[in-house]
Amino acid sequence: MTRHVYRFGEGVSDGGKGDKEILGGKGANLAEMAAIGLPVPPGFTIGTPMCLLYYEEGEHFPDTLRAEVAQGIAHIELKTGKKFGDVADPLLVSVRSGARASMPGMMDTVLNLGLNDETVRGLAEASGDPRFAWDSYRRFIQMYSDVVLGLDHGAFEEALEIAKENKGVHLDTDLAAEDWQALTARYMELVEELWEKPFPQDVHEQLWGAIGAVFGSWQSERAKIYRRLNGIPHDWGTAVNVQAMVFGNMGETSATGVAFTRDPSTGERAYYGEYLINAQGEDVVAGIRTPQYLTKSAREVAGAKAVSMEESMPEVFAELSRVFDLLERHYRDMQDIEFTVERGKLWMLQTRSGKRTAKAALRIAIDMAGEGLISEQEAVLRVDPAALDQLLHPTLDPAAERQVIARGLPASPGAASGRVVFDADTAEKRSGLGEKVILVRIETSPEDIHGMHAAQGILTARGGMTSHAAVVARGMGRPCVSGAGSVSIDYKAKQMRVGGCEIGEGDMITIDGSTGEVMLGEVPTVQPELVGDFGTLMSWADRSRRLRVRTNAETPNDCRTAREFGAEGIGLCRTEHMFFDAERITSVRQMILAENEAGRRAALAKLLPEQRDDFEQIFAIMAGLPVTIRLLDPPLHEFLPHSEEEFADVASAAGTTVDLLKRRVAELHEFNPMLGHRGCRLGITYPEIYEMQARAIFEAAVKVAKSGGETPIPEVMVPLVATKAELQIIRALIDRTARSVFEEQELSVDYLVGTMIELPRAALMAGGIAEEAAFFSFGTNDLTQTTLGVSRDDASRFLTVYVEKGIYARDPFVSIDEEGVGELISIATERGRAVKPDLKLGICGEHGGDPVSVAFCERIGLDYVSASPYRVPIARLAAAQAALRRG
Amino acid sequence: MTRHVYRFGEGVSDGGKGDKEILGGKGANLAEMAAIGLPVPPGFTIGTPMCLLYYEEGEHFPDTLRAEVAQGIAHIELKTGKKFGDVADPLLVSVRSGARASMPGMMDTVLNLGLNDETVRGLAEASGDPRFAWDSYRRFIQMYSDVVLGLDHGAFEEALEIAKENKGVHLDTDLAAEDWQALTARYMELVEELWEKPFPQDVHEQLWGAIGAVFGSWQSERAKIYRRLNGIPHDWGTAVNVQAMVFGNMGETSATGVAFTRDPSTGERAYYGEYLINAQGEDVVAGIRTPQYLTKSAREVAGAKAVSMEESMPEVFAELSRVFDLLERHYRDMQDIEFTVERGKLWMLQTRSGKRTAKAALRIAIDMAGEGLISEQEAVLRVDPAALDQLLHPTLDPAAERQVIARGLPASPGAASGRVVFDADTAEKRSGLGEKVILVRIETSPEDIHGMHAAQGILTARGGMTSHAAVVARGMGRPCVSGAGSVSIDYKAKQMRVGGCEIGEGDMITIDGSTGEVMLGEVPTVQPELVGDFGTLMSWADRSRRLRVRTNAETPNDCRTAREFGAEGIGLCRTEHMFFDAERITSVRQMILAENEAGRRAALAKLLPEQRDDFEQIFAIMAGLPVTIRLLDPPLHEFLPHSEEEFADVASAAGTTVDLLKRRVAELHEFNPMLGHRGCRLGITYPEIYEMQARAIFEAAVKVAKSGGETPIPEVMVPLVATKAELQIIRALIDRTARSVFEEQELSVDYLVGTMIELPRAALMAGGIAEEAAFFSFGTNDLTQTTLGVSRDDASRFLTVYVEKGIYARDPFVSIDEEGVGELISIATERGRAVKPDLKLGICGEHGGDPVSVAFCERIGLDYVSASPYRVPIARLAAAQAALRRG
Repeated sequence: MTRHVYRFGEGVSDGGKGDKEILGGKGANLAEMAAIGLPVPPGFTIGTPMCLLYYEEGEHFPDTLRAEVAQGIAHIELKTGKKFGDVADPLLVSVRSGARASMPGMMDTVLNLGLNDETVRGLAEASGDPRFAWDSYRRFIQMYSDVVLGLDHGAFEEALEIAKENKGVHLDTDLAAEDWQALTARYMELVEELWEKPFPQDVHEQLWGAIGAVFGSWQSERAKIYRRLNGIPHDWGTAVNVQAMVFGNMGETSATGVAFTRDPSTGERAYYGEYLINAQGEDVVAGIRTPQYLTKSAREVAGAKAVSMEESMPEVFAELSRVFDLLERHYRDMQDIEFTVERGKLWMLQTRSGKRTAKAALRIAIDMAGEGLISEQEAVLRVDPAALDQLLHPTLDPAAERQVIARGLPASPGAASGRVVFDADTAEKRSGLGEKVILVRIETSPEDIHGMHAAQGILTARGGMTSHAAVVARGMGRPCVSGAGSVSIDYKAKQMRVGGCEIGEGDMITIDGSTGEVMLGEVPTVQPELVGDFGTLMSWADRSRRLRVRTNAETPNDCRTAREFGAEGIGLCRTEHMFFDAERITSVRQMILAENEAGRRAALAKLLPEQRDDFEQIFAIMAGLPVTIRLLDPPLHEFLPHSEEEFADVASAAGTTVDLLKRRVAELHEFNPMLGHRGCRLGITYPEIYEMQARAIFEAAVKVAKSGGETPIPEVMVPLVATKAELQIIRALIDRTARSVFEEQELSVDYLVGTMIELPRAALMAGGIAEEAAFFSFGTNDLTQTTLGVSRDDASRFLTVYVEKGIYARDPFVSIDEEGVGELISIATERGRAVKPDLKLGICGEHGGDPVSVAFCERIGLDYVSASPYRVPIARLAAAQAALRRG
Repeated sequence: MTRHVYRFGEGVSDGGKGDKEILGGKGANLAEMAAIGLPVPPGFTIGTPMCLLYYEEGEHFPDTLRAEVAQGIAHIELKTGKKFGDVADPLLVSVRSGARASMPGMMDTVLNLGLNDETVRGLAEASGDPRFAWDSYRRFIQMYSDVVLGLDHGAFEEALEIAKENKGVHLDTDLAAEDWQALTARYMELVEELWEKPFPQDVHEQLWGAIGAVFGSWQSERAKIYRRLNGIPHDWGTAVNVQAMVFGNMGETSATGVAFTRDPSTGERAYYGEYLINAQGEDVVAGIRTPQYLTKSAREVAGAKAVSMEESMPEVFAELSRVFDLLERHYRDMQDIEFTVERGKLWMLQTRSGKRTAKAALRIAIDMAGEGLISEQEAVLRVDPAALDQLLHPTLDPAAERQVIARGLPASPGAASGRVVFDADTAEKRSGLGEKVILVRIETSPEDIHGMHAAQGILTARGGMTSHAAVVARGMGRPCVSGAGSVSIDYKAKQMRVGGCEIGEGDMITIDGSTGEVMLGEVPTVQPELVGDFGTLMSWADRSRRLRVRTNAETPNDCRTAREFGAEGIGLCRTEHMFFDAERITSVRQMILAENEAGRRAALAKLLPEQRDDFEQIFAIMAGLPVTIRLLDPPLHEFLPHSEEEFADVASAAGTTVDLLKRRVAELHEFNPMLGHRGCRLGITYPEIYEMQARAIFEAAVKVAKSGGETPIPEVMVPLVATKAELQIIRALIDRTARSVFEEQELSVDYLVGTMIELPRAALMAGGIAEEAAFFSFGTNDLTQTTLGVSRDDASRFLTVYVEKGIYARDPFVSIDEEGVGELISIATERGRAVKPDLKLGICGEHGGDPVSVAFCERIGLDYVSASPYRVPIARLAAAQAALRRG
């Protein structure tokens, strides 16, 4: 027979911290504390499998559980010397939920269970405090009616208010024992009215009701939603903890408090917490009374008068300190603790690893490693890579005032202030004059890239976390708030409206890309402190990781930033971003609109020296490191003119008419550009474009090599390949171009030719394709789009609903869909390596900076990930953790 | 050592008809004819592997070949009793190419080889005909100079013209021996001038030159292009046939001819052919002299005077008849034959299976089975399913005159005449008045469906074989010419221009969707004759096939046509086509533009009875057969208004303003609608739409069942599923709706719920999805789009180039890409059946009507294919052939 009840407390412990799966987090830690001899009120845990059984049985308990629970109660009675339901000195218990993962506020709790019309009198006598006894009883009735009986709690609160009004007082504390007793009677009436039965007086009936209610709360709507949002499986179930009550509200020698063993905000090694004398736990949280500091020093720093626990209860505090140190050493992590002092005796009610800021996480990890508490590897595992994001961008000064006028999505972290501009050209112009600007658009398009570059930050009214604005901004490391739906933008009037507020061009706003807030005026920011701890952790991470980390970058600025952040090469240099440059776009358009190859070649000849310069700069910065350059990828119409002015410019440059141009533009229109005439299809149909780009790459590489700089290693990457033949044809073109440049320049450099794997067919055909490729780079953005049949630009209309309904556990554009897209990557990896064992494998989609996806890349054995510059440290840490977890 | 030379003729035969791979088609059949004792001029074949070796060796022959060729020549010398290069009575040979597949006119030939300044005199003496000898010599020099030496043949033709002018004659036949001799001398000068060397006099040098030239012609540009277009692999190579010359031009007892053993146009069992007395083979083809009929009866039917071979050479004709019958019995197929009579002796030069029209193919297959020559199964295998298309549509009367004004793609077969209209509404209006119209559009969109239905045929200026117009027209069985690039259309002026021609609304044109021709005026057509042979063959096919054949249809008309053509159910009923109906579109638009569920439900309530009627009609027609109904699939914006008038209609119906509507339309815009908010994503986000459709289906099914008709078997199909969870959610909705309809109506009907597999992820997740699905239908159109990353609507810009360059062997939207898409289908089939062995599997993309794809479906074991109504017979035949070929 499976065991379902596990005892703990006062020398007994049927479980420990390793048993979270069965006991839940709270139960496991209570058992653990009991096991290491800490003062834990005795109790028992009903394991999570019973929760599932309970639902399987149609919300009934198997008979065998009764006997086990009876043994549990007997254990508590033995240890406390009290009897459950004893009229003279009754045992009271709490009944609390406790799932494997913390679900704060989602699940139900019943306190003071075991009181009835008779035992309340025994409690009054035994405690010598009738007010306490009746207050406890009415709290119990109120809680039980709400949680177990499902009655409207408003009716009870109203009765309490009436009681206070009748007595002409405002605070609960102003009510005396008789008042509570009277209220209890009123509560009993209310229960009979609403429930149509009297309040249960049998303490066992009370207990089973509470246990059932806690299990029941697992399936409440709010709990289900919480699990969905936090990725907690529905079949985990919750445990139930039944534990002897201890009371912090039994007078001036009683107290209750919460504490962290270190400062959760800064990571400083100092006890950090609050307590209240003569109070119950919920009073600390409720905020009715102002809690007092735990330590004298904290009180002094804050300039507070209320005496600290260290001063008011020095002996208990000393005991508590001992417990803090013991728990930290035992758990080898900073602990978040709940305790109660009942008439001078300390009781531990909870311990768990404490939540902390990124800054604190970093400091605690480094400190603990320094203290010898954990190893360097463990320190690396202790910091959430995603949280590093907070450290890598300027943040708003927390002390500054702010007037939030709108909220959007936190699309690209960091804070920025600047003057509002509504188009990319103005952004560039004003920024050229030294002004800080925020580019505000309904949504952005590739045409806006130069303006996004010029701006301090970007705000859009439409678009999700993976909209053009969001993706490009993250890539550039520009703060971005996207999809601020309440903002309405009028380009003509150069005005944005939000709420009652009208903001014109040149007005100052501030955006916080980490929270999604939009604020009026300039809010001061603080610069990121990439202090010693950060560097130390990164160096430890680098020692542990196998995966190399590259960056997605194409501007000299981004390349420099990425190197500072530790990038070991470029994994994706998008040449088309260079095409948008204001000085070049006219030549690009002329090339596209040319009627024949000769026309295209004429335009390309103008672009060649410009592209060569781009690559030369990048090669110089990335000296000696591999630089993966993707040949032109997007459909040509992305580069085409929109405004009349632009049409006129191109027409005059190309010696043609605006009408003719417009017709050509219409011809180039595509229904599904994502699946259209782009990627290597351009290289197959207009080989001269790729030829120019290859020439620019090799000429630049030779130039850098000749100038005495470290010779770069260009990796020429062909996008959107679906067949071996495509790569064969284009590789021949690239090799031919390389040969002719090397002959002309009388110098050769090493280079590789490889391909993106970003179509399902390419993944399946990886064996054949590998014969032509020196490397594969998984373009997981496009691979996700095609495998799932979801356009990233259009997904917002349904993907949110999909994630809410649990159809996809996470946004597949944020974390790789391991089942679907992941299988294709695995297939390609296997088939590619079977043909070419030394095939270099990497990933260059947005997923390269996502820790969960990085772990996937480690598991399937890729060689590198490539992330946007600001996510390089995140990827480094994630790669280290993935390697360590793999062992 | 590998053998390279294979002899044939006069009792010797080193090969046979099974050796086409090595000997090529011509060589294998010459060897075969020799083997069965037919009179074949002796010769030898150099096998195809030598062709590849020749290229591998840098266009050189291995030494070993010399000895083998010498043996071959010795064989000819022995059999003919002549010597190669013999001055007295020289052996002359022909050198001809012969690949595995016929490549008419693509490859080179040299005749009369072995003549030089000395042997020509021997030939004159031995033949007793100096004119013949010198004519043969000058023909040889001319041919050799062109084919082997690569000299400009214009110069030789000019010299011949000058010779005739000088003599004042017009015809070659007017030149005498001396004239030919003089011309030969001039030719010799020409060779020295152009080649800067004298014409080779060594007959062995001549021979090797010719062999090299034949091999060389395999890599000529025109041969390469031909192979690309006809899917002939480049690495097959060609064989070379060296054979003793026989001469049909040695006087009145000599002749040459070509013949078919049955009529290749009608299939009638009668010898069919032409011959010329005193002529060489090329004279028959060249058309300088009018060939005469072979048989007396053919001559009489044609009312021709020139005597038939049956009459002029009765003995040889009797011999030829015997050979025809022998060959037909031997090859068990209608033969296409070349022969020569040299001084009363019959020589066979070629035999091969004859090309024939679809009609003839059908008749010959049925007749031969009747004659016991082939089995029923073989008869089924003899008819090309694709060719059936010719029989199933009206065709232009071949006797009628026609004025072709433009050419486009043969997008949907059949011919149609009608008055030009430029928009769907006018098409509907005029057709409603009993007029026949042709809908002419730049390109079509779903908005045009009602006009396409109303029209006799469709002509578009843009779009490929798989454009909207082409696909929909094929589905409807309407003739369509798409992508007629030379047509320019002005909607405003209601005019199309092409060449110098201006055609306005109401002008009559004719289109031929089988050839792509557009003609001015009405060209008479002939109706298809689905005569006895067709029915017989279909019944034989049905006995042999395993795959079931369903149809893609949603109108009562199409359903009826498909049943007539033998459809065994509906594999794809696209409910959205019903939404475009003029009477409903406003309700549909109101539903889409509603701001909330209540608004949508109000509009859906109006659509419910209409949809129910649709299904009722279909169920009645398809009595007792399975009907697969796909729930709404396309993105909602496809239904939205375009014109101001339409906007006004919807605004008034929905009680809103045009401005508001337009804003909503803009909101619904998608960048990549193919990957957007469509398919089951609509069902997840707006469940009420699918609920209405499910209700309409079940209510209709119950109604038909109650009315005493055969109870239909609805198969409700959920589109665009990528995850098990989607199908789970929607299946629950469908089941719930079914239950409530069955309860309301107090009658249940059987039904299935299944899904399209049209996304790569769905194929990979097929195991899980199968748990929720009773059937899978592979939507290979979309699966091809996503797997290859190619938008069908946009592919024309590069896919043509791709097929030309051999990147894809065939258009993957016409024949399934077996490597890529095919692997996903196989994966899904395996994984689905592993979970659910009785999972029903079908295909409903356009590929369901493509014979190559049907064969693939047979191989991987699908249960059915579904094709557009007019392709159902093609699919039935293709399925039978695939099953028979599998054995």
